Amino acid sequence: MTRSWWGWGNVEDAVKGAELKALLERARMLMPGEPTDHEPPDIASLGLPAPRVTAPASLAGLCSADPADRAAHAHGKAFRDVVRNLQGDLRHVPDLVARPRDERDVVDLLDWCTREGIAVIPFGGGSSVVGGVEPRFDGRPGTVTVDLERLDQVMEIDRTSRAARIQAGVFGPRLEEQLHPHGLTLRHFPQSFEFSTLGGWLATRAGGHYATLYTHIDDLVESMRVVTPNGVSASRRLPGSGAGPSPDRLFLGSEGTLGVITEAWMRVQERPRWRAGASVRFGDYAAAVAATRAIAQSGLNPANCRLLDAAEALLNAGADVGGGLLVLAFESADHPVHARLERALELCRDHGGEPSGVTSGEAPGHAGGEPDGAPGDGSAAENWRSSFLRMPYQRDAMARHAVIAETFETACTWDRFDALHRAVTEAARQAMYEVTGTGVVTCRFTHVYPDGPAPYFGVYAPGRWGSMVSQWDHIKAAVSEAIETHGGTITHHHAVGRDHRPWYDRQRPGPFAAALTATKTALDPAGILNPGVLLPAP
Amino acid sequence: MTRSWWGWGNVEDAVKGAELKALLERARMLMPGEPTDHEPPDIASLGLPAPRVTAPASLAGLCSADPADRAAHAHGKAFRDVVRNLQGDLRHVPDLVARPRDERDVVDLLDWCTREGIAVIPFGGGSSVVGGVEPRFDGRPGTVTVDLERLDQVMEIDRTSRAARIQAGVFGPRLEEQLHPHGLTLRHFPQSFEFSTLGGWLATRAGGHYATLYTHIDDLVESMRVVTPNGVSASRRLPGSGAGPSPDRLFLGSEGTLGVITEAWMRVQERPRWRAGASVRFGDYAAAVAATRAIAQSGLNPANCRLLDAAEALLNAGADVGGGLLVLAFESADHPVHARLERALELCRDHGGEPSGVTSGEAPGHAGGEPDGAPGDGSAAENWRSSFLRMPYQRDAMARHAVIAETFETACTWDRFDALHRAVTEAARQAMYEVTGTGVVTCRFTHVYPDGPAPYFGVYAPGRWGSMVSQWDHIKAAVSEAIETHGGTITHHHAVGRDHRPWYDRQRPGPFAAALTATKTALDPAGILNPGVLLPAP
Ligand SMILES: Cc1cc2nc3c(=O)[nH]c(=O)nc-3n(C[C@H](O)[C@H](O)[C@H](O)COP(=O)(O)OP(=O)(O)OC[C@H]3O[C@@H](n4cnc5c(N)ncnc54)[C@H](O)[C@@H]3O)c2cc1C
Ligand SMILES: Cc1cc2nc3c(=O)[nH]c(=O)nc-3n(C[C@H](O)[C@H](O)[C@H](O)COP(=O)(O)OP(=O)(O)OC[C@H]3O[C@@H](n4cnc5c(N)ncnc54)[C@H](O)[C@@H]3O)c2cc1C
Repeated sequence: MTRSWWGWGNVEDAVKGAELKALLERARMLMPGEPTDHEPPDIASLGLPAPRVTAPASLAGLCSADPADRAAHAHGKAFRDVVRNLQGDLRHVPDLVARPRDERDVVDLLDWCTREGIAVIPFGGGSSVVGGVEPRFDGRPGTVTVDLERLDQVMEIDRTSRAARIQAGVFGPRLEEQLHPHGLTLRHFPQSFEFSTLGGWLATRAGGHYATLYTHIDDLVESMRVVTPNGVSASRRLPGSGAGPSPDRLFLGSEGTLGVITEAWMRVQERPRWRAGASVRFGDYAAAVAATRAIAQSGLNPANCRLLDAAEALLNAGADVGGGLLVLAFESADHPVHARLERALELCRDHGGEPSGVTSGEAPGHAGGEPDGAPGDGSAAENWRSSFLRMPYQRDAMARHAVIAETFETACTWDRFDALHRAVTEAARQAMYEVTGTGVVTCRFTHVYPDGPAPYFGVYAPGRWGSMVSQWDHIKAAVSEAIETHGGTITHHHAVGRDHRPWYDRQRPGPFAAALTATKTALDPAGILNPGVLLPAP
Repeated sequence: MTRSWWGWGNVEDAVKGAELKALLERARMLMPGEPTDHEPPDIASLGLPAPRVTAPASLAGLCSADPADRAAHAHGKAFRDVVRNLQGDLRHVPDLVARPRDERDVVDLLDWCTREGIAVIPFGGGSSVVGGVEPRFDGRPGTVTVDLERLDQVMEIDRTSRAARIQAGVFGPRLEEQLHPHGLTLRHFPQSFEFSTLGGWLATRAGGHYATLYTHIDDLVESMRVVTPNGVSASRRLPGSGAGPSPDRLFLGSEGTLGVITEAWMRVQERPRWRAGASVRFGDYAAAVAATRAIAQSGLNPANCRLLDAAEALLNAGADVGGGLLVLAFESADHPVHARLERALELCRDHGGEPSGVTSGEAPGHAGGEPDGAPGDGSAAENWRSSFLRMPYQRDAMARHAVIAETFETACTWDRFDALHRAVTEAARQAMYEVTGTGVVTCRFTHVYPDGPAPYFGVYAPGRWGSMVSQWDHIKAAVSEAIETHGGTITHHHAVGRDHRPWYDRQRPGPFAAALTATKTALDPAGILNPGVLLPAP
């Protein structure tokens, strides 16, 4: 397998053949005519500038100045990153890509860069969708991207406490592979699972696949090691503590601006054994939302509780519903869960929902982490599942054919959801109309809490090759304004990075901004770590 | 009812009559002979120094210089506080007690004190057991204790999102009373519930009565308002967010050193309707611990899962068990919970446990918040329950009769529990032997997590009147060393305050200390807020 330098995942898994044909067929709903395929440029043709810095002899062995390496580390994996790559627009590339072998190497790299004032970008899978790994700043003698891929080991397993010490650079599949022989799983499955890392999840407060309870990676952390320019921060392994403000919570969400996470003790779980699931159709969206809220507030804690609106259900699950489709699943390693499903379905029926595809039973071989919908069961849930895994590849194929296909997400309290949903949808439609003349917006809930949902929106519109980045930026600004105005968070799990800064700055309490700035100065006095993320570049 | 200035709760509820007789009977196991009752001194006899500061005219109406007021705000409610009060040892008292009527008053008070360099101690119920409200520092022109008792309103209820905006100075009972007509509850019941406040819980990351899932107040917070000398920090109401490090988590556990919490949006719940409970006896403590761990890791999430060791079961639940007594309860507002209890009991039986007193059913009138064991059911659980509520009063009675009676708590991962338990018990016994010649140490779990328990220890020893504070301090130092050395946290929920500082300083990661110091300087440049708590007094 070869990793794509410009787009998602492996080159071999790109959309082609029948899948491509079907995709373009659907795209024709938006843009009539035969779409043109825009191939990615040759790296040699990009004319990358020569690296501005040279590593000292002791670190040179860790550092690569290979153009393909530098190009592959220049952007994250958002739609606007993929489009810029396709257009050969690599204005900012790191000068070097360093691959430390251990924590000592990380310390040495930070020491060197602090001395020279060289910017450092911590890099996990590079799946950031917010400009988090892009050296988009000036006034630095150089930039070194620190790629942690060599730190990919599960170092220790504490079976008794159900915890594992795991290096930060490990990708999802390799992590689960190492836990598997022990019957354990981290059970954290973001959509980007295959091509993102533990360190990236921690640094961005990633949201996993599960809809309730342990949604963010935050709650799975027992302790962390973080290399800051001002020393290594090592917290104690604790199941819970009340000793002052939580040290881990400072680094969770710090997005590479305060230090490099090298490893963490993570809470792991037994692999689920019992499972029950169903899809529920609703004729009316408001009723579907009310049912979902009732389940979120019931304490039943489903593993999945994903409400797709009619457009999302049609586009991504092939289901034609008037109001919405609720995909429900329960899981447990300890006890049967059908009674919980039954009760959830009762709550759905109370709101006019019609369940179908009910499954329940033991699935000892079940890997966990597979989104719901057993392969081959032909259900709407299964359709949704396969499209979930293919989505990023399909997005890239659409980008190549000048279709704007991107997502954005938020969370808000239930009382504000209706207004937010209306305003965001309206803002997206209006903005798409302005820049493309048409477009579709869809919504699903990725996570639900007793006090509110995390809505996730998809936007599909016919782009104009050469202007797609500015077209998307126009849409994104409009929806971000609507989110901010209607009490949502600028991000529930995609992080702030560079792209969300204008709205994050408004959302963040002033005194907290002052605290974060002071913390930044204390831990990173030379301001080398990821300038421009979370805080203005110094 | 009259609040006691020197001890716990209301004067009218003090231990007397038959309860006192029985208590002293038990105390005789430790100290033979007729114990002397040491009455609290008269406040007039304390000879408090005159206040060193006078409030400006605009604030004078909020401030009291009454000696009784100042004496009642000089200490928290730990055993060492009560003993010092009984001995008339009030070395440090605030100069004034200010009672703001609203947030504006808090801002004005902080402005005045910042200008003059006067120390400010935020004060809720004053139930701190770690010296958190004691003006134990020098080098300040004066100290003003800011008592928030007037901020006692539930301001708004959002039924749809199940959230309520609540002022920080409200005491537990008054808070629940205001939620009650709406069928809602905060469901946060520390043992100090009656005489502690929402703001205090938030500032100390208090642990409630429930054993799993939402143990600390932290998880119940939707947003907070905090008045810092550098402006008001107001976070957005959100069910979940991933936008940078959490602002609320910085103030949770800040113990009055970064700002005064004036109000918070809290997640509330429907009052529980279904309940099931039982007590389980174990002949062997290790087996009891293993059963408790199995339940903690099962995902059954009991509301109570309190393992009492043999000494604790005997002393506080009147139950004679060889290994331990596990008090289990499940609750739900939405669905019956007997199946979960059944499964938990199965896990207990797998480890040799013998269940008894199984109850299960609907309890629509159930207040929630009542510790388990229905009044009058005569069970070991009920005995435990009534002693839970009477414990602080009994502790005061014992203090008056020169019995050392105090608790300390921690949390650790399961793999370290056996060694920690042994070491802490041994250290406590050894230290008691050194200073009193004898003593009893008990242990129970207040909370259990998948990766570890929160053990809570009780210590009972015959004190020597006049030396009891130093006797206790000797014991406390010994057990704190053992906790620290064996990987526990110096506090799971009692907070750091001034008394836990030496061990907290060792536990806290160095770079995090630097971050906290920088934050303190940014938010409280004059260093007026609670000097000596969490960080060294400047
Ligand atoms: C198709 C697709 C699907 C996605 N689905 C999800 C999803 O379901 N849930 C979700 O939460 N996100 C999702 N994302 C966003 C992204 O995958 C997450 O933000 C993820 O956590 C990033 O991990 P990474 O290892 O790729 O980090 P990177 O992209 O390499 O880095 C992200 C940020 O973290 C910092 N960082 C990385 N590693 C470290 C470290 N070890 N120490 C300190 N800082 C570090 C970087 O500097 C950067 O600021 C998706 C993205 C794509 C493209
Ligand atoms: C008998 C007894 C039982 C207890 N049981 C428990 C228990 O079960 N669980 C538990 O967690 N704790 C328990 N405690 C400890 C104590 O009750 C908690 O720490 C509680 O949270 C303190 O609340 P309070 O309102 O009394 O705060 P206070 O004692 O008044 O203050 C505690 C700390 O918080 C700060 N503070 C108070 N209010 C504010 C505010 N509005 N803004 C900023 N800072 C503020 C103070 O400056 C101080 O540092 C117990 C104590 C006793 C004496």
